[in-house]
Amino acid sequence: MANLIHGGDIYSAKEKGIEDILDFSANINPKGLPERVKQTIIDGLDACVNYPDPLCRELTSALSEFEGIDRECILCGNGAADIIFRFALALKPKKALVLAPTFAEYEIALDTVGCETVHYELKENEDFKLREEYLDKLDSSYDVVFLCNPNNPTGQLISKDLLDKVLKACVEKDILLVLDECFIEFVENYEKYTMKSYIEQCKNLFILKAFTKSYAMPGLRLGYGLSSDKALLKKITDMGQPWTVSVLAQIAGVQALKETEYLEESLKEIRAERQYLVAELNKLGVKNYKPAANYIFIKIDEASRYEVSTFKDKLLKKGIIIRDCSNYIGLKEGYYRIAVKSHSSNERLINALKSI
Amino acid sequence: MANLIHGGDIYSAKEKGIEDILDFSANINPKGLPERVKQTIIDGLDACVNYPDPLCRELTSALSEFEGIDRECILCGNGAADIIFRFALALKPKKALVLAPTFAEYEIALDTVGCETVHYELKENEDFKLREEYLDKLDSSYDVVFLCNPNNPTGQLISKDLLDKVLKACVEKDILLVLDECFIEFVENYEKYTMKSYIEQCKNLFILKAFTKSYAMPGLRLGYGLSSDKALLKKITDMGQPWTVSVLAQIAGVQALKETEYLEESLKEIRAERQYLVAELNKLGVKNYKPAANYIFIKIDEASRYEVSTFKDKLLKKGIIIRDCSNYIGLKEGYYRIAVKSHSSNERLINALKSI
Repeated sequence: MANLIHGGDIYSAKEKGIEDILDFSANINPKGLPERVKQTIIDGLDACVNYPDPLCRELTSALSEFEGIDRECILCGNGAADIIFRFALALKPKKALVLAPTFAEYEIALDTVGCETVHYELKENEDFKLREEYLDKLDSSYDVVFLCNPNNPTGQLISKDLLDKVLKACVEKDILLVLDECFIEFVENYEKYTMKSYIEQCKNLFILKAFTKSYAMPGLRLGYGLSSDKALLKKITDMGQPWTVSVLAQIAGVQALKETEYLEESLKEIRAERQYLVAELNKLGVKNYKPAANYIFIKIDEASRYEVSTFKDKLLKKGIIIRDCSNYIGLKEGYYRIAVKSHSSNERLINALKSI
Repeated sequence: MANLIHGGDIYSAKEKGIEDILDFSANINPKGLPERVKQTIIDGLDACVNYPDPLCRELTSALSEFEGIDRECILCGNGAADIIFRFALALKPKKALVLAPTFAEYEIALDTVGCETVHYELKENEDFKLREEYLDKLDSSYDVVFLCNPNNPTGQLISKDLLDKVLKACVEKDILLVLDECFIEFVENYEKYTMKSYIEQCKNLFILKAFTKSYAMPGLRLGYGLSSDKALLKKITDMGQPWTVSVLAQIAGVQALKETEYLEESLKEIRAERQYLVAELNKLGVKNYKPAANYIFIKIDEASRYEVSTFKDKLLKKGIIIRDCSNYIGLKEGYYRIAVKSHSSNERLINALKSI
């Protein structure tokens, strides 16, 4: 059985007979799939009678232009999660350093090759921010370290300055830095945070990105990795079938990259809605951690107006799913993540929070 | 770079500037994607804003009914090729027996875990048919053996009687039999050949199936495995991300299984066209091996009217791609595979063959 530890599992709620579900547990662009992407899929349906291009040639070219990175440094996959697993299978690292809490799939993928995963605990009293002390932990016993910027589920940004130092330490100690930037496009002035400008010159950096969140297409499955270590990219490719990215994901991706207006409008909307949600959460006395992307990390404890043991279920009865973060390593009961959605949805969440 | 050793690579031909390509190199149902499957995808596009169901619940239920097999014995994947790779990664067999020639991905997948692959050579003077002598090779040194029925690229059927004996030997010698039945629905009276009735009672049998060929949807990526070894299915699931099957593949699959009329008409058409092609190939003096499914294995040699060295390229210049089988282990130059397509396409192929 596949694990059901993640957000976005609307199917289990449907099984329970809950209709009209509002899913705040997955961090998806609230604007939905861009209209022209939908039309591209409809127009391209007949192309599904062909096998997909194993080399994703058209998509890779479009990504190369979009990212400003040599096409030889781009590897597409069936979602970023596909790349994470094939990366682990290809690299077969012996020892890895992973944040706690962070996205669970890094460690699950590392487990498939028997890698020892050490957790770097982010501290609650430091608002789960990554600090310079992290550098002290980077020693050459690690084959790979995983960072996520902004981190999931905490939403905390890592400063460019600290990332520069981490990468420098990784180069010195021959560690591979895997940096998950799947949410970075939602960050204000994200150009100041992304490390992609180092990709072509530094083989110790591997960046993960996805179309999932930015273009609201998690159901289509499309992600990619950036690296100038061509031997590694070849190994990752070989660790799976040739046709991992579907025809529809490839053509949808090419169109999505042209949707600059959609993306700009989304960022504007998400910024405003994030502010609205934070203000309302503060009014309700709900502890929240400064959000950087399209999701907000919150804490419900004895001091709040809610009971931890019934909080999630009371929302579920109102058709609202939020991400219970108690199963993240490094977290305990009472932590939740909510997505920033459209204004009407956010209002429904706030009204529900007011009424329970 | 992903390997480009397979058929169906229309993209390389397009790169060469060849327009109006007629692809005989991939064995896809010539009727194209069923209309109602297309409509289901269009109607379901908005569902792509959700993550796919990791458990593929609706699809698995539909498959369970379609195959008459307990849903616990069904595992869906991103095409059958995805299952082949995750199967190898999960089982990590030490030694495997694979036919030569056969579908290349079995061995490529086994290579990822360092498995020793022994080739069982099918003989040209026996028309590449699998015979009882195969049973003598089955000893307990093998962890797994792969068979494909009908075999790809030769199109030769394995009799039910021989398969029964192979499975019995595998049980006795504790070998896992992986049987690829991806093309079996194109075989006349295929119920007489499929081994699926043994799945629920025998853990030594693993059957591979796909929507790719039967419903003309290789671009969507949807395949599945059948096995009653639940521990193995769990291991395969764990060897990859939770969201391997896209939302669109899941809903398309559910609809495709309802398309019984489409499938019946397809089989009728393919049968007639197969006869037409064989008759025309015989008139042209092209050696062909009795086809069982929707593709025909042919041989071009000195005795034929064509030059082996230019045969494929001459067809390519006329916009026709066929599958050059010289890179299959166990084959040499001069072997090709052609798909059975619609009558007008088949006529175009025959006319091209007449003119070169």
